[in-house]
Amino acid sequence: MKLYNYWRSSASWRVRTALALKGLSYEYVPVHIAQGEQRSAEHHARNPMDQVPALELEVNGERVVVSQSIAIIELLDELHPEPALLPRDPYLRCRARELAEIVNSGIQPHQNLAPMARMDALQAGAGRAHARHFNELGLAAYEARAKDVAGRFSVGDSPTIADLCLVPQLNAARRFEVPDLEARFPLLIRVEAACLALPAFQQAHPDAQQDAVKPV
Amino acid sequence: MKLYNYWRSSASWRVRTALALKGLSYEYVPVHIAQGEQRSAEHHARNPMDQVPALELEVNGERVVVSQSIAIIELLDELHPEPALLPRDPYLRCRARELAEIVNSGIQPHQNLAPMARMDALQAGAGRAHARHFNELGLAAYEARAKDVAGRFSVGDSPTIADLCLVPQLNAARRFEVPDLEARFPLLIRVEAACLALPAFQQAHPDAQQDAVKPV
Repeated sequence: MKLYNYWRSSASWRVRTALALKGLSYEYVPVHIAQGEQRSAEHHARNPMDQVPALELEVNGERVVVSQSIAIIELLDELHPEPALLPRDPYLRCRARELAEIVNSGIQPHQNLAPMARMDALQAGAGRAHARHFNELGLAAYEARAKDVAGRFSVGDSPTIADLCLVPQLNAARRFEVPDLEARFPLLIRVEAACLALPAFQQAHPDAQQDAVKPV
Repeated sequence: MKLYNYWRSSASWRVRTALALKGLSYEYVPVHIAQGEQRSAEHHARNPMDQVPALELEVNGERVVVSQSIAIIELLDELHPEPALLPRDPYLRCRARELAEIVNSGIQPHQNLAPMARMDALQAGAGRAHARHFNELGLAAYEARAKDVAGRFSVGDSPTIADLCLVPQLNAARRFEVPDLEARFPLLIRVEAACLALPAFQQAHPDAQQDAVKPV
């Protein structure tokens, strides 16, 4: 498999964590989104949204590419069922997917480069304020909805697709300077710590990637 | 089951279509989002993103509520497998989910009331332009990615979760005045017609709902 991705992209990070939890090896192909490489003809063919990640894999002897992190994670979970990234019980599976979608469709789209640039074009700094607003809203919703299903992780006592989305999102929330994360989202901070104690989450962390830019 | 929803909400429409295709009956509970009812304490408890839909159902003798349309549709498909809303083959399942997510996380979040209001606060009309931009981008990506998997519907010859997302999205694209839909997205328009020929898609249409506002 080849993962076209970017160290700091939260959607890339989710997929890297899934691959690491399942112990799957892959070729890491960096797409430098800060330099616009996602808009190249080659990458556009892989992902016409001009985003990362895209996963290239072999299916029935043919090389194929799939995009959209949630769809990729569901595929990996179906092709390589252990360890499972969704609970067995249908209702709890739904709750894990619900939390994942609060991040995936409720927060993350608003902090993408494109909408932030459109906001900034109207008012300097409006992009970051937009991203911060939806981080605050979405993390509060996640905290509220996780309360009755969380164990050591967001849903029960093993990592699910929800945790794969949560960890990168909290990282983004800090970059966008959402204040008082620990006081406002104690459950999320506790779950994040449980995740980051696992080697798979450490391997998938942006700072551990080959294209990571070290702070100067 | 009770579906808390709004006639014109595209995420509500997706879930109504899933329920109709599976022949499941439910109580329709309108949430008037144009009047702010989604921010009431009652609805906030059901869906702390203050959005529709939310589905109330009984699980193991207990009344529970779930939100996020994609998670709800996956749950309905697991609890009531026929007719299936995902292909059987894992790779094609992924392709259907990928198309659904192009709409769910790639387009729809940008046309929600909240981000549009934030844009409009910076410049009158900017919200609609924002929504139109992401409709154009996302529908082009959907058309490109559906080409090699489409049959009569987006993926193969029966409706999937992708079609459930596509039909409301094309309706929104018209409301936001995306030009030349027929010329630019011929595959999508053909699939939409195949969907709208089915009674389930007709039953789920906004204009057929009890809270629909008739044009004056």
